[in-house]
Amino acid sequence: MNTTEQKYAEMITLLKEVKCLGSIGAVLGWDERVMLPEHGAAYRAEQNSLLAKLVHEKFTSPRVGELIESLAGRWTDQPASEQAVNVREAKRAYDRETKLPSSLVVELSKTEVLAQQAWAEARKTNEFATFAPWLEKTLGLLRQKAACIAPDKPAYDVLLDQFEPDETAANLRTVFETLRAPLVELVGKIGACGRPAPLEILERTYPPDAQERFAKQAARAIGFDFAGGRLDVSLHPFSSGIAPGDTRITTRYDPNYFGDAFFGTLHECGHAMYSQGLPLEHFGTPRGDDVSLGIHESQSRMWENLVGRSRGFWTFFLPKAREAFPDALKGVNDQDWYRAVNDVRPSLIRTEADEATYNLHVLLRFEIEQDLLSGNLNVNDLPAAWNEKMKHDLGLTPPDDAHGCLQDIHWSGGAVGYFPTYTLGNLYAAQFFEQARKDVGDLDAMFARGEFAPLLAWLRKHIHTHGMTYTATQLVQRVTGTALSARPLLDHLNARAKDVYGV
Amino acid sequence: MNTTEQKYAEMITLLKEVKCLGSIGAVLGWDERVMLPEHGAAYRAEQNSLLAKLVHEKFTSPRVGELIESLAGRWTDQPASEQAVNVREAKRAYDRETKLPSSLVVELSKTEVLAQQAWAEARKTNEFATFAPWLEKTLGLLRQKAACIAPDKPAYDVLLDQFEPDETAANLRTVFETLRAPLVELVGKIGACGRPAPLEILERTYPPDAQERFAKQAARAIGFDFAGGRLDVSLHPFSSGIAPGDTRITTRYDPNYFGDAFFGTLHECGHAMYSQGLPLEHFGTPRGDDVSLGIHESQSRMWENLVGRSRGFWTFFLPKAREAFPDALKGVNDQDWYRAVNDVRPSLIRTEADEATYNLHVLLRFEIEQDLLSGNLNVNDLPAAWNEKMKHDLGLTPPDDAHGCLQDIHWSGGAVGYFPTYTLGNLYAAQFFEQARKDVGDLDAMFARGEFAPLLAWLRKHIHTHGMTYTATQLVQRVTGTALSARPLLDHLNARAKDVYGV
Repeated sequence: MNTTEQKYAEMITLLKEVKCLGSIGAVLGWDERVMLPEHGAAYRAEQNSLLAKLVHEKFTSPRVGELIESLAGRWTDQPASEQAVNVREAKRAYDRETKLPSSLVVELSKTEVLAQQAWAEARKTNEFATFAPWLEKTLGLLRQKAACIAPDKPAYDVLLDQFEPDETAANLRTVFETLRAPLVELVGKIGACGRPAPLEILERTYPPDAQERFAKQAARAIGFDFAGGRLDVSLHPFSSGIAPGDTRITTRYDPNYFGDAFFGTLHECGHAMYSQGLPLEHFGTPRGDDVSLGIHESQSRMWENLVGRSRGFWTFFLPKAREAFPDALKGVNDQDWYRAVNDVRPSLIRTEADEATYNLHVLLRFEIEQDLLSGNLNVNDLPAAWNEKMKHDLGLTPPDDAHGCLQDIHWSGGAVGYFPTYTLGNLYAAQFFEQARKDVGDLDAMFARGEFAPLLAWLRKHIHTHGMTYTATQLVQRVTGTALSARPLLDHLNARAKDVYGV
Repeated sequence: MNTTEQKYAEMITLLKEVKCLGSIGAVLGWDERVMLPEHGAAYRAEQNSLLAKLVHEKFTSPRVGELIESLAGRWTDQPASEQAVNVREAKRAYDRETKLPSSLVVELSKTEVLAQQAWAEARKTNEFATFAPWLEKTLGLLRQKAACIAPDKPAYDVLLDQFEPDETAANLRTVFETLRAPLVELVGKIGACGRPAPLEILERTYPPDAQERFAKQAARAIGFDFAGGRLDVSLHPFSSGIAPGDTRITTRYDPNYFGDAFFGTLHECGHAMYSQGLPLEHFGTPRGDDVSLGIHESQSRMWENLVGRSRGFWTFFLPKAREAFPDALKGVNDQDWYRAVNDVRPSLIRTEADEATYNLHVLLRFEIEQDLLSGNLNVNDLPAAWNEKMKHDLGLTPPDDAHGCLQDIHWSGGAVGYFPTYTLGNLYAAQFFEQARKDVGDLDAMFARGEFAPLLAWLRKHIHTHGMTYTATQLVQRVTGTALSARPLLDHLNARAKDVYGV
């Protein structure tokens, strides 16, 4: 064994220990949102902070830094090798974690707690002024953070990099601009066609226990592995790839609405099947980790929208839905159901938006958060800017800020640069799906026969199994032969609009 | 602030951090038994062992030892002060944890895993010979362990001390001997009375969801706080006082048997209400911890047997049971139900034994494990010794070792000195209950009105709130004015037998 090999092995051991502690934190996090008794919350915060401290101490120890530094120049001739990937990404994470002075870390963490409280209060009372000073303070700290990590890069890019490594605002602006106008046009055409989807079908009585059985049936059918996972209930649905063989998703059943729980489950299944498809033997190292939020979201959006709202999917599942919900679906024909689950119409709230208008919500936030961070937009002018953009792109005016610029938690938690990953997910999903169709064949016909394994196998082979070997940009180029593009998503949305609305 | 105070404060901070890590382990442990997907087991073992290593490292650090050593002589004039209690018990735990060479710790831990596998295999195949060499090896390691911890004390006492601090085998032998003969006589009289309990009533159809509602109703009524706890399902029922505001119990519902889940829930509630009654502000230090397994078991046995099988309890709950299980309880009169839940008869399996014969199972194990440890009994002669004692005390001969000396997991895991705490629990329960009746008044009449709070308040005041301030021996003396005694348990069992069987 030579020295380089020994050092690499030591680095891997340390990274795996850090991840093991992190995975313990993931168990606590799942438990907190799904199981924790009310009075256990205060002490759980102490457990979380002790564990976070241990993770930070272990990962930022000088020894980890020495190992990464001395390995950083190696394997550059084999950039896709396990070693190169692990060193590259460990260095990225280490730099991110060690470049902030601890005073700034403490200040960010305290501000996050207080800003979220202020945001919650502001949203409840419709008083933007309650949140404004906290947003101002948060933006100031984020500018400092970006300057500490990479003073030579645009601040927004540095923040974006936390969620979408190596992506840039300039690139996103270019691609998103090619998406906006055709999307606004499409939404307008659907609205003008005079044949709104019969949404009332989805608002009938759907007993929660029947919804749960049906959601589990669908999850199992598309490939979620229940021997290595669970589906439970929580207030806010999420997916957590806790550890090898332990990936958990949640949903929430509304007895008077079919959509949220079912499509939410498909969405979380998409995330979870990505986690379940990562290479187990590399768990705890970047080689076994997911690429980025955008790639993660491409998996959830693909299963939720491209698969879960397709004709083929419902050819197979509607008969089963009729068995599960005989009362609600009495007298509903296939076409009405298909139109109901593919409703497209402008709305005020991002989380309730359909697969087309959703992106307009994201584009608006992407622009605003860049302007806020750069100082081009004054915090006090945020509500007006928000409402103006809503009017321009979606034709709606929020009745108040709770339905406008106060609706999302992200900025209050310091998550600037996060929103674009949602639309990135939609774009990548459409690009990957288009390629899968080329490679695998008539996916819709397969779905109609209940065959979802060919698509999942394709995703495993081309995306999941590579872990962080490629950045998102590299991956989409490698898998589809082209860079990030709005064209496949627009093609998909146009084709579906034509099929559903005849426009 | 003087130096002693600073050192004490530092010791407390360190102990609380150790306990915080331990409580994270408790979340993992609960999750493993209640929630963990099948394929998550392997990685969970890695999480557990990393956490155990961190706990051990933190607690056995030289700094903890220095602090304890320098504080050990203080506050001896106020032995019930918070400081004296915390230093005394921290020292006990520290000595226990640091006196073993790490080679022995590793050997014990490895042997435990393999011995449990061998035991499970032996029980499955009814081959004692498969387990014998592992039991032999375990006993050898336990003798070494005892010699490392306290070479001047009898080995059995050293092992017993882990579960029941300061208790001795000599004392238990004396008390247990006064229990045995009257108990054998009582069981004989009940068997001879010719009026066996109508057990068939409990073996009717009890739908699990109705059982769960009824168990939760009872748990809530006797005082289990669901805002600070949960009741879930697991293969083996348990209680876990994870953290302040987070105490969880489990049970298992057999659709064709009422007894296990219901009395099991009351039992676990007893443990859990003790955890919920410990002083929160001292969580993480001995002052806020439970006294011993025997005292813990006194709480579970009291609620399960002295309360849960009493006339008053069923005066209040039988009408509710009739609502919950209208089919099963059709035509069942009060007296038959009362007799069914108070069945006493010799049986082969400890975990299925009634409140009277249970102690004979324990006495047998207590004698045998002392003889095994001392070498007075050869491992190969264990099955014969077991069967002889079963015949002598319970009048039964096991058909095979799976129903005899292989039925319990304890010895395979190195838990020698554990069994007597079960009967200690029964003895303490009867002693405490007798005193509570003197102090609080007619408990049975209160139970009949659904009033359980007065008993719980008495337990909180006299037992729970003191944490580890007193050892079990001191506590029973302080609360009841007498030392450990078999008399109150025998009085209780005799009175109940007279009431139920007229003997």
